[in-house]
Amino acid sequence: MPTDATPRPTIYDVAQRAGVSKSLVSLVLRDAPHVSEARRDAVLAAIDELGYRPSRAASALASQRTRTVGVLIDDFHNPWFVELLAGLRSVLDPAGYTASVADLALETASGRKPVDGFLAQHVDAIVIAADLAPGTLERVGVPIVVAGLRELGARDAGRAVDVVAGDDELGGRLATEHLLRLGHTRVAHLAGHSGPGDARRRGYESAMLAAGLEPITTGGGATTEAAGYSAACALLEAHPHVTGIVAANDVMAVGALAALRERGLSVPADVSVVGHDDSPLAAYRYLALTSVDGHSADVGAAAARALLRRLDSPDAPAHRELLALDLVVRGSTAPPPT
Amino acid sequence: MPTDATPRPTIYDVAQRAGVSKSLVSLVLRDAPHVSEARRDAVLAAIDELGYRPSRAASALASQRTRTVGVLIDDFHNPWFVELLAGLRSVLDPAGYTASVADLALETASGRKPVDGFLAQHVDAIVIAADLAPGTLERVGVPIVVAGLRELGARDAGRAVDVVAGDDELGGRLATEHLLRLGHTRVAHLAGHSGPGDARRRGYESAMLAAGLEPITTGGGATTEAAGYSAACALLEAHPHVTGIVAANDVMAVGALAALRERGLSVPADVSVVGHDDSPLAAYRYLALTSVDGHSADVGAAAARALLRRLDSPDAPAHRELLALDLVVRGSTAPPPT
Repeated sequence: MPTDATPRPTIYDVAQRAGVSKSLVSLVLRDAPHVSEARRDAVLAAIDELGYRPSRAASALASQRTRTVGVLIDDFHNPWFVELLAGLRSVLDPAGYTASVADLALETASGRKPVDGFLAQHVDAIVIAADLAPGTLERVGVPIVVAGLRELGARDAGRAVDVVAGDDELGGRLATEHLLRLGHTRVAHLAGHSGPGDARRRGYESAMLAAGLEPITTGGGATTEAAGYSAACALLEAHPHVTGIVAANDVMAVGALAALRERGLSVPADVSVVGHDDSPLAAYRYLALTSVDGHSADVGAAAARALLRRLDSPDAPAHRELLALDLVVRGSTAPPPT
Repeated sequence: MPTDATPRPTIYDVAQRAGVSKSLVSLVLRDAPHVSEARRDAVLAAIDELGYRPSRAASALASQRTRTVGVLIDDFHNPWFVELLAGLRSVLDPAGYTASVADLALETASGRKPVDGFLAQHVDAIVIAADLAPGTLERVGVPIVVAGLRELGARDAGRAVDVVAGDDELGGRLATEHLLRLGHTRVAHLAGHSGPGDARRRGYESAMLAAGLEPITTGGGATTEAAGYSAACALLEAHPHVTGIVAANDVMAVGALAALRERGLSVPADVSVVGHDDSPLAAYRYLALTSVDGHSADVGAAAARALLRRLDSPDAPAHRELLALDLVVRGSTAPPPT
């Protein structure tokens, strides 16, 4: 289903170029007898010159696999997707598929439906690694696999959609329990509003409640560095005795580091900070963030396998796979000050 | 020129399916007389079932624009490309083109030629924003525009290739002159080996020499955070009295921050650090890197405009455009300790 702006030549264009009627073009296409050699040649020449393809040939062509998989991520600024993509490719490459990446932030800035570009490229399938507006996937006629917990139900696509994700609720719990085990009791959460963000908050809250502690949640909007900074400023204003912060992701955690430093608080001596995603950022020595490893590469590889299965069996029942996560402890967490 | 793994059906496949000779398929394709209706029908049915397209139709089809532009970046881990891509899209989107992004790091990990994926997608043109091995662009039959200073001469592609880049040599000079004006005299460079990296080093060296100072350059390999850390460790070992560091890019600068902190040196009180790219990283409050703004968005927009011109005039002479850069001063630079 090409959506590009170059109009495909129609049977009328062929008729006009050949100087014959549309009916005669149809006769030639149907290989009907009783068409003069001259007029048949004129039609065939026009078909060739215009690159016209009759609709059956066009649909046969459209059904040919391009061996390209579209990967829709949320935002290139958020580096968690780098490992996801590596995992996707570790499976797609040997299978002969190329990944084509686009990001929701820029795609929606242009006012187009975020998947239109992929459809124009005739991708064979799409991996959704972003939160989409309801209805975005309606009438997308290729298999879809969702990577990560998204605000996207299988029902949105009107058919079976596989979901492969890290268990983000477990991740939120692991981050919180790490701080509780270190002896922290005043632990707050910088929430981000997204599919994974909501699950992480539930994990944080359940770990706090299980320990008989009151959850303190701020933020809950964007998941950027700026949002992390603002949420941490609000938190430290309202709860100056907090000693532990669980951020919804690594960039928000980096925002919190700045808010803490501005108030003269050391990390981890005064306040411990845990990120989420174990992005390249978390591993930078200068940041050294303790972070929940979302095993994005494993999620990517599992999503790619689900996608290859789905290409083979378009009508198989929807499949949902949650991968266990674990925590990478670095320099941003320590016991609370005594 | 499809390079995907699904073999396109050949005339032999059609002949086999129809139970006729290849010559008879040719006769039907040439619309020759004296072919029985039954055998003609068998051949046409086989052509339809297999989705076979004779080569002239195939080339007519291949000449149709897909309105997709491949963008080859070096590494998703290095966030400078985010703005480049935004700039590219600000011009490509209104022109009806979709950008498809791939990165050299992962593409070469898979052992394929980095542009093969784009050719399989039938992109209309390619933007190269990565350093490529010589010969990579041979036989790439679509227009190419190079974004950034690359180790790629126009000659590599065997034809006119437009280059649009920030003036990285000017950038290296601006970063160095900023430190010299603040009063630093012992200023070192953490070099990265790449097209832009080489230009930045030349800029640093020329500014030092113009001020009558001896250049001190370390590094010169990879441009990663780890490479920046190692280069800074080596530098501080050999030149412990350095008070200013000009890094080849922002991630290397972040590596240097860690090396300085490990030695108990404060930024900027003891040592000033300048990055390059003004990436999202540099703007994170916790890092607050003074950095050369490469105006990547402007480079991207200019590259996209060059590409649209090249699509219109494939034979126009090669065009080279260097954009002026400037410095964004943040918290990582100050006068040297007294």
